[in-house]
Amino acid sequence: MSVMNTTRLSITETIADGRITFFRLPHLRDAGQADAVLYGVPFDSGTTYRPGARFGPYGVRRASLSLGSCDHTGNDVFAGMRVADGGNLVCVPFDVGTAHVQIEQQAHQAFTGGAVPLFVGGDHSCSLPILRAAADAHGPLAVIHFDAHSDTSSAAHWGIDKHHGTVFRNAIEEGHIDPKRFVQLGLRGPFGEPDPHAFTRGKGGIVFEAHEYNDALTFLQSLPTAWGSHPVYVSIDIDVIDPAFAPGTGTPVSGGWTPREMFAAIRALRGIRLVGGDVMEVAPDYDHADITSLCAAHLLFELLTLLPHRAASNS
Amino acid sequence: MSVMNTTRLSITETIADGRITFFRLPHLRDAGQADAVLYGVPFDSGTTYRPGARFGPYGVRRASLSLGSCDHTGNDVFAGMRVADGGNLVCVPFDVGTAHVQIEQQAHQAFTGGAVPLFVGGDHSCSLPILRAAADAHGPLAVIHFDAHSDTSSAAHWGIDKHHGTVFRNAIEEGHIDPKRFVQLGLRGPFGEPDPHAFTRGKGGIVFEAHEYNDALTFLQSLPTAWGSHPVYVSIDIDVIDPAFAPGTGTPVSGGWTPREMFAAIRALRGIRLVGGDVMEVAPDYDHADITSLCAAHLLFELLTLLPHRAASNS
Amino acid sequence: MSVMNTTRLSITETIADGRITFFRLPHLRDAGQADAVLYGVPFDSGTTYRPGARFGPYGVRRASLSLGSCDHTGNDVFAGMRVADGGNLVCVPFDVGTAHVQIEQQAHQAFTGGAVPLFVGGDHSCSLPILRAAADAHGPLAVIHFDAHSDTSSAAHWGIDKHHGTVFRNAIEEGHIDPKRFVQLGLRGPFGEPDPHAFTRGKGGIVFEAHEYNDALTFLQSLPTAWGSHPVYVSIDIDVIDPAFAPGTGTPVSGGWTPREMFAAIRALRGIRLVGGDVMEVAPDYDHADITSLCAAHLLFELLTLLPHRAASNS
Amino acid sequence: MSVMNTTRLSITETIADGRITFFRLPHLRDAGQADAVLYGVPFDSGTTYRPGARFGPYGVRRASLSLGSCDHTGNDVFAGMRVADGGNLVCVPFDVGTAHVQIEQQAHQAFTGGAVPLFVGGDHSCSLPILRAAADAHGPLAVIHFDAHSDTSSAAHWGIDKHHGTVFRNAIEEGHIDPKRFVQLGLRGPFGEPDPHAFTRGKGGIVFEAHEYNDALTFLQSLPTAWGSHPVYVSIDIDVIDPAFAPGTGTPVSGGWTPREMFAAIRALRGIRLVGGDVMEVAPDYDHADITSLCAAHLLFELLTLLPHRAASNS
Amino acid sequence: MSVMNTTRLSITETIADGRITFFRLPHLRDAGQADAVLYGVPFDSGTTYRPGARFGPYGVRRASLSLGSCDHTGNDVFAGMRVADGGNLVCVPFDVGTAHVQIEQQAHQAFTGGAVPLFVGGDHSCSLPILRAAADAHGPLAVIHFDAHSDTSSAAHWGIDKHHGTVFRNAIEEGHIDPKRFVQLGLRGPFGEPDPHAFTRGKGGIVFEAHEYNDALTFLQSLPTAWGSHPVYVSIDIDVIDPAFAPGTGTPVSGGWTPREMFAAIRALRGIRLVGGDVMEVAPDYDHADITSLCAAHLLFELLTLLPHRAASNS
Amino acid sequence: MSVMNTTRLSITETIADGRITFFRLPHLRDAGQADAVLYGVPFDSGTTYRPGARFGPYGVRRASLSLGSCDHTGNDVFAGMRVADGGNLVCVPFDVGTAHVQIEQQAHQAFTGGAVPLFVGGDHSCSLPILRAAADAHGPLAVIHFDAHSDTSSAAHWGIDKHHGTVFRNAIEEGHIDPKRFVQLGLRGPFGEPDPHAFTRGKGGIVFEAHEYNDALTFLQSLPTAWGSHPVYVSIDIDVIDPAFAPGTGTPVSGGWTPREMFAAIRALRGIRLVGGDVMEVAPDYDHADITSLCAAHLLFELLTLLPHRAASNS
Repeated sequence: MSVMNTTRLSITETIADGRITFFRLPHLRDAGQADAVLYGVPFDSGTTYRPGARFGPYGVRRASLSLGSCDHTGNDVFAGMRVADGGNLVCVPFDVGTAHVQIEQQAHQAFTGGAVPLFVGGDHSCSLPILRAAADAHGPLAVIHFDAHSDTSSAAHWGIDKHHGTVFRNAIEEGHIDPKRFVQLGLRGPFGEPDPHAFTRGKGGIVFEAHEYNDALTFLQSLPTAWGSHPVYVSIDIDVIDPAFAPGTGTPVSGGWTPREMFAAIRALRGIRLVGGDVMEVAPDYDHADITSLCAAHLLFELLTLLPHRAASNS
Repeated sequence: MSVMNTTRLSITETIADGRITFFRLPHLRDAGQADAVLYGVPFDSGTTYRPGARFGPYGVRRASLSLGSCDHTGNDVFAGMRVADGGNLVCVPFDVGTAHVQIEQQAHQAFTGGAVPLFVGGDHSCSLPILRAAADAHGPLAVIHFDAHSDTSSAAHWGIDKHHGTVFRNAIEEGHIDPKRFVQLGLRGPFGEPDPHAFTRGKGGIVFEAHEYNDALTFLQSLPTAWGSHPVYVSIDIDVIDPAFAPGTGTPVSGGWTPREMFAAIRALRGIRLVGGDVMEVAPDYDHADITSLCAAHLLFELLTLLPHRAASNS
Repeated sequence: MSVMNTTRLSITETIADGRITFFRLPHLRDAGQADAVLYGVPFDSGTTYRPGARFGPYGVRRASLSLGSCDHTGNDVFAGMRVADGGNLVCVPFDVGTAHVQIEQQAHQAFTGGAVPLFVGGDHSCSLPILRAAADAHGPLAVIHFDAHSDTSSAAHWGIDKHHGTVFRNAIEEGHIDPKRFVQLGLRGPFGEPDPHAFTRGKGGIVFEAHEYNDALTFLQSLPTAWGSHPVYVSIDIDVIDPAFAPGTGTPVSGGWTPREMFAAIRALRGIRLVGGDVMEVAPDYDHADITSLCAAHLLFELLTLLPHRAASNS
Repeated sequence: MSVMNTTRLSITETIADGRITFFRLPHLRDAGQADAVLYGVPFDSGTTYRPGARFGPYGVRRASLSLGSCDHTGNDVFAGMRVADGGNLVCVPFDVGTAHVQIEQQAHQAFTGGAVPLFVGGDHSCSLPILRAAADAHGPLAVIHFDAHSDTSSAAHWGIDKHHGTVFRNAIEEGHIDPKRFVQLGLRGPFGEPDPHAFTRGKGGIVFEAHEYNDALTFLQSLPTAWGSHPVYVSIDIDVIDPAFAPGTGTPVSGGWTPREMFAAIRALRGIRLVGGDVMEVAPDYDHADITSLCAAHLLFELLTLLPHRAASNS
Repeated sequence: MSVMNTTRLSITETIADGRITFFRLPHLRDAGQADAVLYGVPFDSGTTYRPGARFGPYGVRRASLSLGSCDHTGNDVFAGMRVADGGNLVCVPFDVGTAHVQIEQQAHQAFTGGAVPLFVGGDHSCSLPILRAAADAHGPLAVIHFDAHSDTSSAAHWGIDKHHGTVFRNAIEEGHIDPKRFVQLGLRGPFGEPDPHAFTRGKGGIVFEAHEYNDALTFLQSLPTAWGSHPVYVSIDIDVIDPAFAPGTGTPVSGGWTPREMFAAIRALRGIRLVGGDVMEVAPDYDHADITSLCAAHLLFELLTLLPHRAASNS
Repeated sequence: MSVMNTTRLSITETIADGRITFFRLPHLRDAGQADAVLYGVPFDSGTTYRPGARFGPYGVRRASLSLGSCDHTGNDVFAGMRVADGGNLVCVPFDVGTAHVQIEQQAHQAFTGGAVPLFVGGDHSCSLPILRAAADAHGPLAVIHFDAHSDTSSAAHWGIDKHHGTVFRNAIEEGHIDPKRFVQLGLRGPFGEPDPHAFTRGKGGIVFEAHEYNDALTFLQSLPTAWGSHPVYVSIDIDVIDPAFAPGTGTPVSGGWTPREMFAAIRALRGIRLVGGDVMEVAPDYDHADITSLCAAHLLFELLTLLPHRAASNS
């Protein structure tokens, strides 16, 4: 990894500037080259229930100001690599189709610019154009998907098959995900159909429901070895977390995982080759005292801690 | 007017039923024929800033439960005519274009069913397909438009010209509004351009800014005589009201009118021939203690009080 | 008036004590004799819609801490007379009938103890047992009633005629109010019946609706002269104020008066012989940033400013 | 079980209708016969602390819209039996005694109508008249009671022994509960007395405190066998859940169970013969982002999943 | 005025950047020279009651994004002069004394840099070091002070005389304000002392209480002529506005002015020579739906509209 | 222990009084002598992020009203010893240094008055003057510190070394804590530096991070034996609890402990010789539905349960 030339701002420098970036990082415009770049995706018209995730990037930027740089193993994430705030992807709020074209174009640049991009949403439908761009750069991806919902439904409900409940069906059918390396975790009912995991399992994917946390954790621990240097994308819908910890989201479901469980789940992945990821569905106007945004920022930080460990696999 | 055969439920009847309709009115499915029908339009993907107006019909229905039947002149609105809750217009939340087609079809039925329809939104973009249907039934309409914004902007900002900020430009350019009988009231800055009323005034319309309330009221009082039996549509964006009274909306602007001022403004219109109307942009999740929904329900009630007075003009 | 022996606590004395009283006043237990005593009435099971006024005394005590002692004429209310916090009237929350018996007994003591009692509620039904006690001490009272609602309905709606919507019908029918000296102000619709003021006007009382503020103010200014030393009770339902200023209440109605209008209305009464009063229906859990409680405390203060002026009439 | 003739509405059908029922179920008025009926009990004047549970049925209906039909075993609850929304029980809000008579009469109809009734409250005092009606239909009931509080106190505190803290003492003393088949779970302190379980244990009942979750779960798993076809009533006070997950309630107590723990606890009961049940004390105005109502709807769903399993025991 | 070389960002440019500045203005670091600069002052430890104004600059920046550029006369404020966001003044949150030294140093730079500085607070105590710097640059200032409180109290209450309630006493006693050109408006009680305006009037200043709005407006209209080119500083405590419109503040007082009244008051000043100003005491965490921040941003905009008019007096 | 002469008030006595004390206890002014005294510390200007802990004592007093007297072992805490509410320590809100002098003086009286004092804050910086007073009375203390943060940072960040992030560094360096008997628990990242526990461990102290709960609990269980009668101070920053359970605090960190885990942790300490303690950083204005204050009151109660067990060690 190259020599460090971007430095995180101190608290007082951030106050003086008056502008807010993810983790007080330099803006990509000022940073030049980076190893990882954080982007916001302020779009939510793919939402079926409560909208508001368009403000997710805003909320997570703010909450991330108060987080430190070092993980529980003593690793200084921002010292070990150059991370920058890439601003937001710009898209119209009126039309999922048009927005996805705009997002895909900008995501394409992100995946081909030499840095690992991580995205903060925004409704989960945005992960479809992002996965298109990711697969274009890396080939079919291994995907680890944390969510309360499978997001593999079809056009049956709304007559339209591009929204936040269909993203992984589309991504698999379009070939962006290697369905044998597709893991869904945290799903929980009451489900809309008797066999809610039929699509994923039919394609060869693996599902762990919320009540199967212990098994899920064990499985995740096996992935760094099992998957080796295969490129991995981690997609986190904040509603995988129980609404008590993450009320600020559009389609909350009771009975989710705790932040501690999620942090352990991500830490279990150390050693995978992460080429991209996202934290989606953060809707700050349904949040209270910023607890959802804080949790989302923390999850984003945990994703960043996976990156220094990729050195072996991609050097 | 025909014999009354629909009766508003009492409070205890409403409690027993457990379901909520506008003003505890019978549902159109049970009511048979009606003189006026209230519809919800749960759509908000035409919103440029804070979404959430998709829940407006829900909030206004609930708040309307506590309102009585009689105006300050002793007129029992629901005794003098048959009013029903027509449910909601159904449309996809993902795409303004598709949704507007769906809304227009259903609004067409509403305007040709023999009753005066009133709509509760929902973002203001929905008024475009409604006005299309209204003009299809009645010809170019006189329109009285209460709003903080002119909603006459173009595709310049977003590259798309169908959203909640362009509805009246489109409605005029498409010929649904008689521009000489187009009145905008309550508009206020800071404006996006030096001559924000150029479009409306250029077409022959009239504008009163928020600080011109007294002149506006006087002008409104002249309209029943001036316009005679010309069909009139009244469109109220709840943000014409100051955010203190109506925080539950997507693009609030400081310095608006009070509810008392708005009630007086609507009462000044008694004698016009109202053929349709709407109360839009109610976003209950930004509301506090239901005050916005209560105000919106009250405005809807005031619109209903205009209807018995149309007897003279349309009998 | 007697020598002052009760002193309001300073801010730092209040902090040191850690306990909260109305206006940082001494508790009646410590104060000995007083000229006016403020009581809470933490009861709300007479509420037809949103309960929570049981916490009104709590909210108003807290908000009152920040208010000064002197009115706009330079009169130091707490220097000119001895005012104390009398604690709360105690009653069961489960049953209006039992509670009213308990309230009446305690209110009787308050009215016969030599001080003018003012009450903070609590739902408006509590004013009935208070008025019973007041009339027992003073004979039929002149009553000035500020409210969004007439509170003169009957058992028709609920099959029970003792709740917060029937208090003034009962008080008049029981003879506690002189109906010729009964004034209702701020009432507004949509009303439940075509002639909502029939009861009051039929008894000889006077009604000003919310849209008649100017006439109401002029009328109030005439009362000190008109009524001379007749004992007066002022009852303020906080919902006379528009919900924007007082969201923290159970049955808010759009289109109410502003605090400035209400302060002017009370100040117009200087010279009446106030023998008791109340500020009711404050429900802090529906409030935001304490604005309702602050307004209620201010109204209570304005009631207190009427007292020094009674010197002439009752000395 | 008879042929299915009631179908749950789709999301778009629900939007079109505009009215809200539990789980988008048909209203009992339209459904004809049903196997299970869900009733609201909008009453809260039996509350000792924060009122507001009168709006519980309203909140749970709304939150239940977004829940699916199938449990984690693939069972479609609404396909396997006919479930309907029975509306609300109607009662006066002013008086626990009168309300309980009204509730009991309506509950009696519910228990003798051929369907299993489940109730959503409303304060826990309402479970007393419901249990009276249930025992009238089924004889003394086995009762599983989840709660933070024992609800076995007496008239000692308030001088009245019918309120939300005395319901199970009364139900046992009146003979509606078989005290040997009475289980209380989730109770926690600080308690009001040194031996808070004396009453229940003295009658032969069993208590598990909140910190004894594992033992409680094991015990629950033994009940389907132990109790065979004895009729069982399950009463859930939402405050058994920790306030982080269920802030919307009247008397929250720190240290409660998680939704996942509660779901597992109910699932452990599969095989009991459920003849009725309730989810009580949901107070939406203290909720945030609907998380309490969502959890309550989910608990109600879990109760429904117990019903198809009763086939063996009551056929 | 010099050639324009700083351009406000469009909405989409702002979204793309992801960082937020006042009114989407360029940051001073990028702007080079400017005619006016907006600074945040994120300090609130001078607060006697509810803290939180440290987040005022943050809230006002965000709310200002949605405001246009043109006032009601068609003047494009940001076209007519170069305005920039100067970031925040940096100071420690632990100690008013140290913070004021830090603020004064940075304010000194602001006042001597060739642009008119406007400040967004932050508690009102910060106006003292700002006024020191302003007077150092311009000599004793004419000051127009809008507030609910006089802020002329002394060390009597807290034993310390530098806090948000003493700023104008200190500024006058230190000679930074010309006491004959000192106007206080919007003050209201209950006051802490019988003659609350003694200090100001004793120095030759003028006071208008909240209930004297009409007189105040007339007086303000006279100032442009009366004061000619004398340098003027306008200090606005957001609590001059009624808490209904501005709940997000530390010491709200019922009975304040409306935004429309305040906008008219500022517009009356057109023609004065504004050399600095502030909008203070915005505490977003007590706000609801951003209405206070929106109002504050609007007031800041109105202050900016005073600047183009100074051309005549200072060219 | 001496004969009991202070009795906790009943609920109805508390309502009658109208004033609120911790756990409805008698005020120290009325109680005479006590075995334990609870003090509020309403100060928060040592806060680096969200202020508001000045209202912590207020919030905890209110929430504590609803708690019982008996722990899960049947011990009646308030029967077994005399506990009183000592009111608040008074200090200026403008300056950490001055406030700490004031706090230390009052804490000195508390520690030398014969009762065990427990404090409710207030920001954590207040624990420094309290620890000074405690060590002055008892010598260097064993300290058990529950927190999300180590609070051992230096002047590096702000140029000032007395604030809520430096308290334990200062207390150790000043000699008030026996560093070999210093335990920190619940700490979690992302940390500000690679070796965040260097200071504590360098002094001989012990640290358990949040993810090490089980080890921490085992260690705590060893302390009563290991420490014997050494005087112990327990300091609880409410943010040791996850923000879902305790949103009402200034610097929340995702991934904290649950209340049940914390209650078990405190109960593990039974047998230590507690000479003082605190529950700090409760900021009610960021709370929801009082859940943070309820949890804090419960923690305070658990601290009290440690006291009767000290009989053996200090008799």
